[in-house]
Amino acid sequence: MRPKIYLFGDSITEESFSDGGWGASLANHFARTADVVLRGYSGYNTRWAMKVMEKVFPAEMNVGGGRSPLAVTVFYGANDACLPDRSSAFQHVPIDEYKQNLHAIKRWPSTHVILITPPPIDEVARLLRHSFDENPSNLPERTNEAAGNYAKACVAVAGECRVPVVDLWTRMQQFPYWGKTYLRDGLHLTLGGNKIVFEEVIGKLHEVGLSLETLPADLPFINTIDHMNPLNAFKE
Amino acid sequence: MRPKIYLFGDSITEESFSDGGWGASLANHFARTADVVLRGYSGYNTRWAMKVMEKVFPAEMNVGGGRSPLAVTVFYGANDACLPDRSSAFQHVPIDEYKQNLHAIKRWPSTHVILITPPPIDEVARLLRHSFDENPSNLPERTNEAAGNYAKACVAVAGECRVPVVDLWTRMQQFPYWGKTYLRDGLHLTLGGNKIVFEEVIGKLHEVGLSLETLPADLPFINTIDHMNPLNAFKE
Repeated sequence: MRPKIYLFGDSITEESFSDGGWGASLANHFARTADVVLRGYSGYNTRWAMKVMEKVFPAEMNVGGGRSPLAVTVFYGANDACLPDRSSAFQHVPIDEYKQNLHAIKRWPSTHVILITPPPIDEVARLLRHSFDENPSNLPERTNEAAGNYAKACVAVAGECRVPVVDLWTRMQQFPYWGKTYLRDGLHLTLGGNKIVFEEVIGKLHEVGLSLETLPADLPFINTIDHMNPLNAFKE
Repeated sequence: MRPKIYLFGDSITEESFSDGGWGASLANHFARTADVVLRGYSGYNTRWAMKVMEKVFPAEMNVGGGRSPLAVTVFYGANDACLPDRSSAFQHVPIDEYKQNLHAIKRWPSTHVILITPPPIDEVARLLRHSFDENPSNLPERTNEAAGNYAKACVAVAGECRVPVVDLWTRMQQFPYWGKTYLRDGLHLTLGGNKIVFEEVIGKLHEVGLSLETLPADLPFINTIDHMNPLNAFKE
């Protein structure tokens, strides 16, 4: 059986198999070596993620049962960081609970968990999505400052658990035009944003020893097949 | 557990998760309802596919064991149709054996198998890939006529087994500029070619009753969650 890499997260994970998406790019990269399993749930926060863990990872919950995922990306926080007094308040999770939840999600001893922080927020782009009638407060439901606090909390949890973390919030803001270059609507990813996530995740997987150099392919590659006796390649 | 849709085939399947690929588009389409599992093996023909079936579908081979795939696309023939006296002769499979192999691959009683014919071949584009030194015969390793014969054989097997078939060879040639529009190198798919395969496969899945209207999502959608009591959605 091929090993599995699960992508567990919110809408930025759910839409990761759209054209040029980071999830599809991972599946393409590991096409002959590992299955990339999509478990993205638009709008979800870590509180809801905790409630659905047993359904999302039914067999894999049997810790030690030998069917643990090879790796899991845990990519939450964008919804947890919604402000509690604005239009998406029902998705808000307090930052201390967010940290506790991240600790609890990282629960398979033999699985490589990679935490991903929320991306930065382009607040102007968030406001432009709605008319004044739809959002009379004219205040964004998320702020970049709040997202940054959750990103720092995520990095802290990764340090406490000694697992790799992709600090997307910091990484994206290293580029001056990050808001337009990496974000489609102030939150979700453009092609450029997807490329960053893909490259960062590949890099972290490589750091923990998971790469095309180390993962075996399940079946022979065409360039290893003897043209005179092709079936030799398929003998046990 | 989510149902699984396997994509079993050659390089046109293996690369189906590249940007805009038909496999990634299927995974994106069924993001909340089914797992799309990539089992593409570049260069493989149906003879080699038969040799690796048990490894490709280990658990699912237990017919009646309740773990049969929801659907399997079987997309071979492009390599079987390589001419036996040209540069890719080692991949050639005689057409009668190709038909027998397709019959044998369609083996799960409760699984919806969808056959896909090889695409048409743009012979000039195939020749342009190599210098005269590399291919002194200056004859393409595949011809459109041979691919057409295998496509007709695939359609015939689908009729005998009463399973849906995507006749890609015929479908693509309905457009006058098919060679450049749908094929990248005379054989593999452009973005336009990927779009056709995606739409045709979605259509055939719909015909056998598999669509977003009929397949349940495993967890609540954000638009069904009560803003006042979000956790109500996650009670058993």
